[in-house]
Parts: sequence; structure tokens; C-alpha cells
Amino acid sequence: MFSQSLENVRMSPIVTISEEVRKRSKEFKERTGKDFLLFQRGEVDFATPQYIKDAATKGLELGLTKYPKSGGEAFFKEAVVKKLEYYNNVKGLTPDNVIATYGGQEGLELTFKLFEGKKGAGFAPCWSCVLENFVPYCNIDFMEVPLEPDFTVNYEKLEDMMKGISFFYLNNPQNPSGKLFNEEEIVRITGLCEKYGVYLITDESYESIVYDGDKVFSALSLPYKNIISIYTLSKTYSMTGWRIGYLATRNEAIPRLMLLGNYTQTAGVTTFIQFAAAEALNNRTESEKAISEMVNEYKIRRDALYEILKGIPGLKVYMPHAGFYFFPDFSGLIPGGLGEEEQKLYAYQKMMDAGIATVYGACFGHHFNNNVRFSYSATNLSVIKEAGERLKILFN
Amino acid sequence: MFSQSLENVRMSPIVTISEEVRKRSKEFKERTGKDFLLFQRGEVDFATPQYIKDAATKGLELGLTKYPKSGGEAFFKEAVVKKLEYYNNVKGLTPDNVIATYGGQEGLELTFKLFEGKKGAGFAPCWSCVLENFVPYCNIDFMEVPLEPDFTVNYEKLEDMMKGISFFYLNNPQNPSGKLFNEEEIVRITGLCEKYGVYLITDESYESIVYDGDKVFSALSLPYKNIISIYTLSKTYSMTGWRIGYLATRNEAIPRLMLLGNYTQTAGVTTFIQFAAAEALNNRTESEKAISEMVNEYKIRRDALYEILKGIPGLKVYMPHAGFYFFPDFSGLIPGGLGEEEQKLYAYQKMMDAGIATVYGACFGHHFNNNVRFSYSATNLSVIKEAGERLKILFN
Repeated sequence: MFSQSLENVRMSPIVTISEEVRKRSKEFKERTGKDFLLFQRGEVDFATPQYIKDAATKGLELGLTKYPKSGGEAFFKEAVVKKLEYYNNVKGLTPDNVIATYGGQEGLELTFKLFEGKKGAGFAPCWSCVLENFVPYCNIDFMEVPLEPDFTVNYEKLEDMMKGISFFYLNNPQNPSGKLFNEEEIVRITGLCEKYGVYLITDESYESIVYDGDKVFSALSLPYKNIISIYTLSKTYSMTGWRIGYLATRNEAIPRLMLLGNYTQTAGVTTFIQFAAAEALNNRTESEKAISEMVNEYKIRRDALYEILKGIPGLKVYMPHAGFYFFPDFSGLIPGGLGEEEQKLYAYQKMMDAGIATVYGACFGHHFNNNVRFSYSATNLSVIKEAGERLKILFN
Repeated sequence: MFSQSLENVRMSPIVTISEEVRKRSKEFKERTGKDFLLFQRGEVDFATPQYIKDAATKGLELGLTKYPKSGGEAFFKEAVVKKLEYYNNVKGLTPDNVIATYGGQEGLELTFKLFEGKKGAGFAPCWSCVLENFVPYCNIDFMEVPLEPDFTVNYEKLEDMMKGISFFYLNNPQNPSGKLFNEEEIVRITGLCEKYGVYLITDESYESIVYDGDKVFSALSLPYKNIISIYTLSKTYSMTGWRIGYLATRNEAIPRLMLLGNYTQTAGVTTFIQFAAAEALNNRTESEKAISEMVNEYKIRRDALYEILKGIPGLKVYMPHAGFYFFPDFSGLIPGGLGEEEQKLYAYQKMMDAGIATVYGACFGHHFNNNVRFSYSATNLSVIKEAGERLKILFN
């Protein structure tokens, strides 16, 4: 009766899982005396740095409470151009190449809307929100190109897929695998897009959470014109609830359409939040300090969780180079003879029964059903250690 | 090549007019020594009340910087339910009937999206953004039911239109006419919707700017289930740049779909802005003080502008009962023998040449081409007086 594309959208399965956790945690506490351990969430447990909160208050006092300019204020877009140059090595952009959006979410949604009714593809595993939200909302015919079990690219499969699609979605660093695509991979993927006239959408939400001296290589630093890159301040500055991000492209037709979409949907991004976000990007001293403190803490968690997962016999664990997720493969631990549904949920449910909330692999497409995602974005070391104790008992 | 619905969207003609003003004002100043008078804008020239700005800062310090709950935080939706009861006489709602949105804009856009591809109608004159943005963005087949020249309803025309449409859009108080639909009109319009199974969308953005002891009558206070009412804090609290509003409905299926749309498009409304907005609604003492100061000032401007417009021979002036627009009819002042385009722009251009920016009637649909909109939302008394001097010379 109502819009079919709205009816086809689903809430993230992670929300459903969180709701189940809420229901079960009381009973679990009563039965065991212990807390549920929340490895399912993508929320961060850091506070927004004080200099950014102060900038928001300053913006309010300056009277930045009037209608925003749709597509973004000049001061914000100028800050973005500078940041893309110093952080992502993206040269030669002007504010006209940039659109301010409500987080990475609006940037991605508007970009998918651009390809309404068309064919697109992306690697599996794939962020659930793409599959459950942007794809049905924009009537996209979306295909998955599976990464290999070790998350390397099979270029033959990729090239086959490029024939006949309008866009390719690349999440780098990748949720849920923790993979950081390197320069060589990005250059080859971009080259294939160019060869087949395919638009490349890069989603670099986790760009700043990168370990071991690595750095994200942004496709937008390459000369290919038809790249649309989506960024957000959510994870980098612990600003998930502020809802501020941006997109950038060298394509000349796209910013005007994104501006029209931004105007139509929301009229534009809250004026004084753009002011605070510009300060977040411009103040490199404070910014680098906040990011490195955050990444150091994530690294401690990652290393601790790695030791635990590596110690489970039969579990195949990929060490994440970026982001805050593990996506280990439980194939070796799932008993034979299970039905498809039971197999999909086996490890997830076993852990859930032990008070460990995770996300099962089928939430991320059709190809990694035996994997499970663990987020350590909001789990401190003692939670990780407690999980280690429980996992040792579960899978020994 | 890209999404046809995105390609069909237009920026508001008011933005184009403002850009032309920017271009011409320098030349005008040099030639005449005088300033352009800006009666084209919908922006307000009041500051956001301090108690609301303080609440935003408090929300930041409380750490309300994490992901919002899509569709709205409980504390915000509870404040909305109370406000709808005390201000709009809407009883019996719970937070489940409410969705938080980015201004009235997102509420309207999501509501139009609900009727994607269907037929709808609304009165002419009609807010330009409906015609230029929501209708093409959501592929709506939209028809206009003209109000009479004195802005009364022709119920015969209205009933004819009700046959075969899915929804009716009602902007009350109305932009651009300044009409406040009264209880009897709302009851009859709602009755026709119910009779023909038509959803009623009410847009009450200007609800608090009402003169002479009048009050807005909200259709949502009636028992008909299929009413979706859209509200915003933009005008009421001079919060245009904050981007916060909400929708409410008694229909049980709609909130879930709106929540899914809100999640897909933006993930939800900025958490600490919902906190400040809840304070805006909950603090009735401060709220009523701020609103009455604002309305008093608007009333002074309205009365002054009315005297001026009434003094122009041949101009038909409707006294606005709400909002901050005049929409007088220049038919008696347009010379015969003009082509259609010339006639449409005659009064607008004549005033533009004299440094008075307004919006021509054709921006508001197909039926009031000889009217022109004057906004007094950002024009103080001295600007209004100066306009009076210039208009006296132009149309004597």
C-alpha cells in the first residue's frame, strides 16, 4: 500500500540483536550473576574531544543558528578540502567538489540514490546497512563479489562483475573484516572501474583507525574522475551522535545533484555543527592527539582479543589492520549435519547463551556464513578478558 | 544518466531570486546610494532563545554525543506528546506515534516518500518546495485545487479532486497566503479525506505565529486515523539552522516506516539537539515568553506593511492571520497586452528594479500568477517604511 522501497528496507540486524541482548541480559544476570558482554555494537566508548564541544558552543554564541547553505557552508567545505589534501593525499579539489552530509549515512544514501534502479556491486563480506537499507531504498540490483577466505581480491571474479554494472562500492577499511586495502589493490580496482566505465564509491568511515604504522590509501587521490568518496567524523572524533560527514568527487555533475538531494531531504546540515566539525578538521594538533590516544587504546584491545581468538583450536582468525572488528571463521568448529539456518547461527547462539553478544556472518551478505563479527569499539580490556574466559570454556 | 527523480528536482526559485539580488544589489547601491530591501526570504531575524542554546551545551557536557535512536529519543518524543496535548489539543498519543526529523523538511520528504509514485493534491497557492522538491523526488502526480481569490475553500472542486488521490497536503497556517484555516474548514476537509479514504498530510510549520488571539486548529486533534502532521521548531523558536522537527500520526503502520526512512537517510537526529529541543518544548514559561515577544514584533511589522499595501490603488490585499507573508493580487496594476511570461513577472520585476526583492506568484503553483509574496520575517520597521516610500512612487 505504501512505497515498496520503504517497505523493503529493514532495520539493521544488529539492532535486532541488541534488542535480544536487552531481553536476555536480565535473565542471564539472575542465573549466572554475570553481565552480558557486548561485542555486537558499532558504537564507540570515547567522549568527543573537548575542543570540538567548545567549538559547538562557540558556534551557538556566534549566532550560527540560521538556515544552513544546502550542500554545506563554505568554511566547512574549505576545511574538508585541506583535510583531504593533508590526510588523504587528495590534491586539486575545491569546495565545489565537496558536499556536507549527515554523517557517512546521508552521503552513502544520496550516492546510492544517484544510481536508483541500476545495477551495482561490492565485495562480500559487506556492511549490513548497504544490503538492508541503501540497496532496497534506492531499488538497486546489487551483486556481491566474494573476497577470498583470507580477504584478498580475486580479480578475475571482480572483472567479470564489472561488465554491466553502474557502480562498485568499496568500503576501506572494511567492516566487518578489518581489511585495509593497500595501494596496489586500490589502483587495480580503480583501473577496472575506469576500464568498464563504472563509478567507484569509496566509503572510508574508518580511515583514521589504522594500526602498525599503516595508512589508508584513498582512491580519490587517483586521477579517475568518476570516484565518489564518503567520509564521516563519527569514528575519527567519537562524534557518532553529531551526524556530520561529507562526500567528495572530481565528477562535475554530481555535486549539484547531491546538493539537491541534501536540500530536499533535510534542507542542509545543522549550521553550528558544521562550524564545530570545521574546527575538528582544522585543528591538527588537537586532532592528531585525540586520534592517536584513541587508536592506541583500540590497538591494546585488538592485540588482547587476537591472543584470545588465536587460542581457540580450529578458529581461523584474520588480524585486522584497521577498524575495530574481528571477523573470524568458525567453519572448523561447527558440527556436521546441521541445517542451513542452524549452521548460520550455531557459533553466534552458542556465544549468546554464554552471555557474549556478536553478529553472525549472514548479516554481511551471502558468502561468509560461518564467520562471526566481534566489535571491540565499546569493550574495555576487562570485558575482553572475561570474554576470553568464557570462550575457553565454550570452544576447548 | 543519473536518477531521474534527482534530475527533476529544482532548487527553490527563492534561492535563485536571492542570488539575483546578490548580483544586482552592488550595482543598485552604486547607482542609487540605497540598499536592496529583502522581502523574498523565509529566514527569521531572531536569535535562538538562550535557554535552548544553554540546553544544547548541557547536552554536550552530559555526553549526549553517541548515536541517536533512529526515529527519536524517548525524552524528545515524550516532550512532543506533552506539547501536542497542551498546544494542539491532540490527546491520546504516546511516543510511539511520534518520529523525530531534521526540521519539517525531513518529515515532509519522508511522508511524500510514503506515497511514492501515487497521486496527491493540495491547495494552490502551494509552498514552492512541495512542487519543486518533494513531488519530483518522490515521483508524485500532484494536482492543485485552487483556493478562491479571497483564499476560501471551494468544496465542490475539493470533493471532485478527492476522487482518485492517495493523499491531500494541507499547509496551515499557509505559506504564501497567510491564511489560517479555521476549525470548520479543517473539520470539513478532514471529513472529505475520510469519506474518500485519502490520507491527510498537515504541515503546521507556522503554528505559533498567529495573530489577534487566533489559534491554529490541528486536524490531528480529530479522531480520523490517517492524518500525518508535520511540525518544526524552526520558526517557533528561531531555530531554522538547528534542523529539528517531528511528525505525529494515529496510524499504526506509518511510524515504523518513517523510522526506517529516517535510519536509512541519516541514522537519526543529532542526539544533543534532541535534548535541547525537548527543553524548548518542556519549558513552557520560557517558551511562551520567547514566542509572544516574537509574535508581537511580527504583528507590528504586519500592521505597518498592511497600511502600505492597502494604500496602493488597485492592489487587492489579504490581511494575513498567521505566518509572516503577504500575498497581494496585482491583477489591477498589470497593463493589458502583455505576453504570459511578461505578465507573470511584471510586478516582481518592476519592484526588483526599485530594489525591492519579492517572490512572484508562479513559484507557488499555477493559479495565482498575478500575486506576489512579501515576507516580513527578516525586515525591520525601517526597511518596511523605506519599502513604503518606494512602492508609493512605483504604483501611484
